[in-house]
Amino acid sequence: MIINGPNLNLLGKREPEIYGAQDFESFFEILRKTYSEVKLDYYQSNVEGELINKLHEVGFAYDGIVINPGGYSHTSVAIADAIASIKTPCIEVHISNIYAREAYRHDSLTAAKCIGVISGFGMWSYEMALQHLVDNY
Amino acid sequence: MIINGPNLNLLGKREPEIYGAQDFESFFEILRKTYSEVKLDYYQSNVEGELINKLHEVGFAYDGIVINPGGYSHTSVAIADAIASIKTPCIEVHISNIYAREAYRHDSLTAAKCIGVISGFGMWSYEMALQHLVDNY
Amino acid sequence: MIINGPNLNLLGKREPEIYGAQDFESFFEILRKTYSEVKLDYYQSNVEGELINKLHEVGFAYDGIVINPGGYSHTSVAIADAIASIKTPCIEVHISNIYAREAYRHDSLTAAKCIGVISGFGMWSYEMALQHLVDNY
Amino acid sequence: MIINGPNLNLLGKREPEIYGAQDFESFFEILRKTYSEVKLDYYQSNVEGELINKLHEVGFAYDGIVINPGGYSHTSVAIADAIASIKTPCIEVHISNIYAREAYRHDSLTAAKCIGVISGFGMWSYEMALQHLVDNY
Amino acid sequence: MIINGPNLNLLGKREPEIYGAQDFESFFEILRKTYSEVKLDYYQSNVEGELINKLHEVGFAYDGIVINPGGYSHTSVAIADAIASIKTPCIEVHISNIYAREAYRHDSLTAAKCIGVISGFGMWSYEMALQHLVDNY
Amino acid sequence: MIINGPNLNLLGKREPEIYGAQDFESFFEILRKTYSEVKLDYYQSNVEGELINKLHEVGFAYDGIVINPGGYSHTSVAIADAIASIKTPCIEVHISNIYAREAYRHDSLTAAKCIGVISGFGMWSYEMALQHLVDNY
Amino acid sequence: MIINGPNLNLLGKREPEIYGAQDFESFFEILRKTYSEVKLDYYQSNVEGELINKLHEVGFAYDGIVINPGGYSHTSVAIADAIASIKTPCIEVHISNIYAREAYRHDSLTAAKCIGVISGFGMWSYEMALQHLVDNY
Amino acid sequence: MIINGPNLNLLGKREPEIYGAQDFESFFEILRKTYSEVKLDYYQSNVEGELINKLHEVGFAYDGIVINPGGYSHTSVAIADAIASIKTPCIEVHISNIYAREAYRHDSLTAAKCIGVISGFGMWSYEMALQHLVDNY
Amino acid sequence: MIINGPNLNLLGKREPEIYGAQDFESFFEILRKTYSEVKLDYYQSNVEGELINKLHEVGFAYDGIVINPGGYSHTSVAIADAIASIKTPCIEVHISNIYAREAYRHDSLTAAKCIGVISGFGMWSYEMALQHLVDNY
Amino acid sequence: MIINGPNLNLLGKREPEIYGAQDFESFFEILRKTYSEVKLDYYQSNVEGELINKLHEVGFAYDGIVINPGGYSHTSVAIADAIASIKTPCIEVHISNIYAREAYRHDSLTAAKCIGVISGFGMWSYEMALQHLVDNY
Amino acid sequence: MIINGPNLNLLGKREPEIYGAQDFESFFEILRKTYSEVKLDYYQSNVEGELINKLHEVGFAYDGIVINPGGYSHTSVAIADAIASIKTPCIEVHISNIYAREAYRHDSLTAAKCIGVISGFGMWSYEMALQHLVDNY
Amino acid sequence: MIINGPNLNLLGKREPEIYGAQDFESFFEILRKTYSEVKLDYYQSNVEGELINKLHEVGFAYDGIVINPGGYSHTSVAIADAIASIKTPCIEVHISNIYAREAYRHDSLTAAKCIGVISGFGMWSYEMALQHLVDNY
Repeated sequence: MIINGPNLNLLGKREPEIYGAQDFESFFEILRKTYSEVKLDYYQSNVEGELINKLHEVGFAYDGIVINPGGYSHTSVAIADAIASIKTPCIEVHISNIYAREAYRHDSLTAAKCIGVISGFGMWSYEMALQHLVDNY
Repeated sequence: MIINGPNLNLLGKREPEIYGAQDFESFFEILRKTYSEVKLDYYQSNVEGELINKLHEVGFAYDGIVINPGGYSHTSVAIADAIASIKTPCIEVHISNIYAREAYRHDSLTAAKCIGVISGFGMWSYEMALQHLVDNY
Repeated sequence: MIINGPNLNLLGKREPEIYGAQDFESFFEILRKTYSEVKLDYYQSNVEGELINKLHEVGFAYDGIVINPGGYSHTSVAIADAIASIKTPCIEVHISNIYAREAYRHDSLTAAKCIGVISGFGMWSYEMALQHLVDNY
Repeated sequence: MIINGPNLNLLGKREPEIYGAQDFESFFEILRKTYSEVKLDYYQSNVEGELINKLHEVGFAYDGIVINPGGYSHTSVAIADAIASIKTPCIEVHISNIYAREAYRHDSLTAAKCIGVISGFGMWSYEMALQHLVDNY
Repeated sequence: MIINGPNLNLLGKREPEIYGAQDFESFFEILRKTYSEVKLDYYQSNVEGELINKLHEVGFAYDGIVINPGGYSHTSVAIADAIASIKTPCIEVHISNIYAREAYRHDSLTAAKCIGVISGFGMWSYEMALQHLVDNY
Repeated sequence: MIINGPNLNLLGKREPEIYGAQDFESFFEILRKTYSEVKLDYYQSNVEGELINKLHEVGFAYDGIVINPGGYSHTSVAIADAIASIKTPCIEVHISNIYAREAYRHDSLTAAKCIGVISGFGMWSYEMALQHLVDNY
Repeated sequence: MIINGPNLNLLGKREPEIYGAQDFESFFEILRKTYSEVKLDYYQSNVEGELINKLHEVGFAYDGIVINPGGYSHTSVAIADAIASIKTPCIEVHISNIYAREAYRHDSLTAAKCIGVISGFGMWSYEMALQHLVDNY
Repeated sequence: MIINGPNLNLLGKREPEIYGAQDFESFFEILRKTYSEVKLDYYQSNVEGELINKLHEVGFAYDGIVINPGGYSHTSVAIADAIASIKTPCIEVHISNIYAREAYRHDSLTAAKCIGVISGFGMWSYEMALQHLVDNY
Repeated sequence: MIINGPNLNLLGKREPEIYGAQDFESFFEILRKTYSEVKLDYYQSNVEGELINKLHEVGFAYDGIVINPGGYSHTSVAIADAIASIKTPCIEVHISNIYAREAYRHDSLTAAKCIGVISGFGMWSYEMALQHLVDNY
Repeated sequence: MIINGPNLNLLGKREPEIYGAQDFESFFEILRKTYSEVKLDYYQSNVEGELINKLHEVGFAYDGIVINPGGYSHTSVAIADAIASIKTPCIEVHISNIYAREAYRHDSLTAAKCIGVISGFGMWSYEMALQHLVDNY
Repeated sequence: MIINGPNLNLLGKREPEIYGAQDFESFFEILRKTYSEVKLDYYQSNVEGELINKLHEVGFAYDGIVINPGGYSHTSVAIADAIASIKTPCIEVHISNIYAREAYRHDSLTAAKCIGVISGFGMWSYEMALQHLVDNY
Repeated sequence: MIINGPNLNLLGKREPEIYGAQDFESFFEILRKTYSEVKLDYYQSNVEGELINKLHEVGFAYDGIVINPGGYSHTSVAIADAIASIKTPCIEVHISNIYAREAYRHDSLTAAKCIGVISGFGMWSYEMALQHLVDNY
């Protein structure tokens, strides 16, 4: 399961010098082909609470979750609580290197509840996380 | 009216060493029986804005609100504004003792706009709040 | 396009000593008449993510956006990211003077991504912003 | 056992717009009648160390303690240590809603060592705490 | 009355990528023509105390003041006190969007004592403020 | 009434380069003679709660209180609450200039609840305060 | 020598609920009569640097200075340096009790370089300071 | 002289995993025997001011003081002032290693006025301090 | 090139509940076999400056660097400067999830100068970083 | 051009243990002789705004400015803005080593807009700055 | 094993008013004679990483370590990690009382990982630590 | 003696837009020729402790030291202690203007122990410092 947070539906359109020129849907198709042996689902929402809903829904059923909470990473106690509440292991990913950006993006409340974090490798961040889940869970 | 915030739909499943093993629905049934003379309603949402919507909806009609804003207690200026905007008195409750947990859970923006706060008594927190509303409003 | 954030649906009912006694809908009708030559739309939501959805929807189509993010101004990295992601210029407005209120309302994450801010002129804040957009965009 | 901290002997005389017009002694009489089946004791002191002495004295003998540490709640590492040192469970109560007052009253060192906190319900705060102890300990 | 603070006499010469290429005097002439029905005065000083002197002088006589305290906005308790001391309503304006610049420019001590703030619209900031004063005072 | 806080019983013995070489008792005798027309009482305690007790005792009976809370000035919410609770006006005095010493002595919780503060004039601080009370209360 | 800082020329006109209804000039006349045996001078300026100029001018010639730096007390390293540079002893006075007002008025950079501070006694603050200088210097 | 602060009378009963299982009185007996050649006194109080009283009493008469101010170490300006006021050298001891506990226990106001600090060696902390005093004073 | 910072030579011996039971050398052998087509080098030092020396040495010659600066990540401006000074791209890795540990480990000065960060995947962190470098540089 | 800020007119009279015993005028004469081939001007003011005025006046005409903003270095956004607004390069100098003094003198807002800073070499600071300007501009 | 950190090789030469006039080598000889029954080794380095190397080397072999990390105590996460990584118990010592010096010396990262701390007793600090190790390990 | 800290061996190669294109060795040759009458030595190390070693070695023998501690300036208590421990006067230099860079480069622990600081003049910073030492020591 891949879950994307706010504004990630704009990938390809949004500030391409930071986030790259590829939209997520076409990237997801490539990912699906590469990992044809695993069932891959994708969900995106700009609504904090819907991300929580989705985490609750899949968090007791799937083998692994790759989540990019976007701007909610740095402010949402509620999503962090959701990740801590579920059973499926989560990996947090970021397209850009959050340490190389504004100071308020350096810390992540949600990452503290995940297995680990991968940040700064563009779309590869997702693939690295996925590969790790496939290998280990 | 009882309003529950994010992740409280998972009660009984989520970190039972902190939040107990009882789910809220069965507890609510007991509550309803004990307070059979009052009309009791229950609402839960993980979405910050839906909690605001519900507060607006009931906040000019009901006699009292028991609210557990969960993780939004500590970050949501918007829910605090909503409580200040309505006419029905609110009591904030927490299942766990928020002072005995992480420092970022010690303060509560939303509690400042309620009559009072009850924190740390498990499911009894709800009952104590309800009893107070029944007795006084 | 005018976008209002949380609790602004209560205008006229909510703390009138701060926000005035006029509801937004009747004000919007006046605005529409005054600016009959421009297409004016209005959207309000209490949900952070729905505000982001709407920004995405109109942010590549409209000529200008007047936004009052209410309590989310001070806490939402995600709405600020959304404003930065779109192409339509935004102006942030506040009914009350945010500098004359609590310290946590002095700063605005979302304003940093807008053209400018107009704060403290009651309903006129909207009209001033609109006039500026009409004149310049 | 009910233990009151500094300035609570002035209840009824002191800032009645915050603390109400009832003095604690007459309230305590009512409480005693309501809970005639339990042995109720009351102690008040303005001296931090005497509160500690009393906690030590009753903290291995009584079934429960309702404590309102007043202004010491926010500064006293020593009372917090005392509550942590004893065996009897404590509930912290406040007459006013501490979140709705000055920022330095929002946090409570002593509450972290209690079962829970009840704040903002006037004299009822004591009764709610007492009821909880009677029901559970 | 329009009052400009430090370095605003350099408009047109100073960092044009932030403040634009127009000098204030020629802009003021345009403003005067547009608002030929109102008596418009203009004062600029780099001296904090002279700005206070001018505020005292006009603050009991004029119908409205548009003030851009420049760099003093963020540091001057004394100018803020002066605005609070006078009777004429003030509007604070900034040419650039102060939220989009260095963090120490986000807060404004002087704005807290004005009716409202208009920030980020270049020379239009002055005109918008003036229009508001003409319409309402 | 003159109330002295902790360590002020050591005056004359304690760090004379800061606090002078005169003990308080002999100074009080001089004061008593100078102000022979007013009833002057003196109380000193090192115990925070006893200072509160004394404030309660005299705070509804005397015409004025001169208080030097010593080291408790900077830490005691409880004494500040006590001063706010009583009816007799208080003046806070300090022998040394608290602004010219360690930063943690610059602020005073208790002074906020007094009429005013006199700091830095040695034993004269007391006399100035007394003179003011005699003249005005 | 009495030196008044910014906005104190407005005494009697400015926020009389805080600063009283008397203007300084008429008060100064009374002071002059009471202390007819000493040469009393008075200077007021809203300009930080002119206050420094005056301090330099009188600071090697007069026997004592009573200074109320107003809003500059809390921000001016330069006036503090000036007081430290001169030889005449200074006493800082405030009409209102600075501890009972906004937090940014609690500390005083300039007071650290004076003999002492008198704050909160209205116009009497000046008289108390003057009396102390007359008695001791 | 050995002086113990708040809650140290509970040694042996209080949180033995931190403070050990031995009560102080029996330990003191052993100490007395080991150091039979020196006059050893022991005082314990939970009251901040009584600790100050005792410091004043012995601080001009004894050769050395071993003090464990417990929770007051981190908050008491008044005890720190008392130690600075007396002539007898003090050594501060802590049973547990204060650096290995909560952050608010890392700093010590009182230690700054002692010769030195010994922290973390259980009851040996007292003996090491005593030995040092015997050897050097 | 793989560069390990302080204490990572103890892997397998040091706190295995955090860092795992495998020593780095044997892991490196496996890595070398897996990536037999690339030239892999390994360097470990506990000395901050030697890590800088090594970065200078390889930073203009190798195709990529995987670096785990250990405890220096959070404090070393000098290593961060070194990474910024060289030409070879660096990826920072951490064995444990730094967000799930002490607050002072959440930020990383050195990561800000790398392409990205991988944290929390045990030894796999190195492999993921290596794979990314092999694929892209 | 050499510009001196507040209190520097007192050089030789003011705290000679920090600032030395030489007055600036006689030093300036020596400087003028040493650099007889360049046109040297000198300006001193205690008034923040007059320093800005002078910077504006010479900032488009002279080849270089040596400025010692004194106490304004640490507080004046307005002077920093002025230096950024002009074209002539500035060097900031301090007579004493600002890092070896109070913490609030360590940072300098104005220095950020200069070419560089020379601090701690007494009157030589000016000469070193002048020499650099002569050599390079 | 005794390990000394940076600048401690200068003992006897360096600021003798703080650190005393004795060099460590001659003191170590005395120590060796006093404790002739135990094998005593001594190591000093100014290099942070070499201290870590030495801790690794002896930390699985010796019975106890007395360490004075000097200036690294307050900044080195890496040495703190090293002490936590080894098996031999460490005691941290300081010659001067770190609480009586600059605020940045009050906290110690490394002490948190030791058994305890002894600070302020000159060379005796080492002996007290050694004695404790000999008695208990 | 000239001592350079971490990464300064890369001068000419490292971020030339900040540090210039000249390497230090060739610059040093020029310096040596210009100052042929004085014995000039040069040392560079990336290792914090080796810089301390060198300071100890030359700090009792040379007439003056020019030191650029690079990134260690802002973090190293140990180097600051070393400079304070030696007898030879030190001048701190920086190639870039540290006030015009990141906030964490504004303060300098090491500069507080030097005579003075020269920052922002490229390679000339060294020459200015050297000239000052030649002239005065």
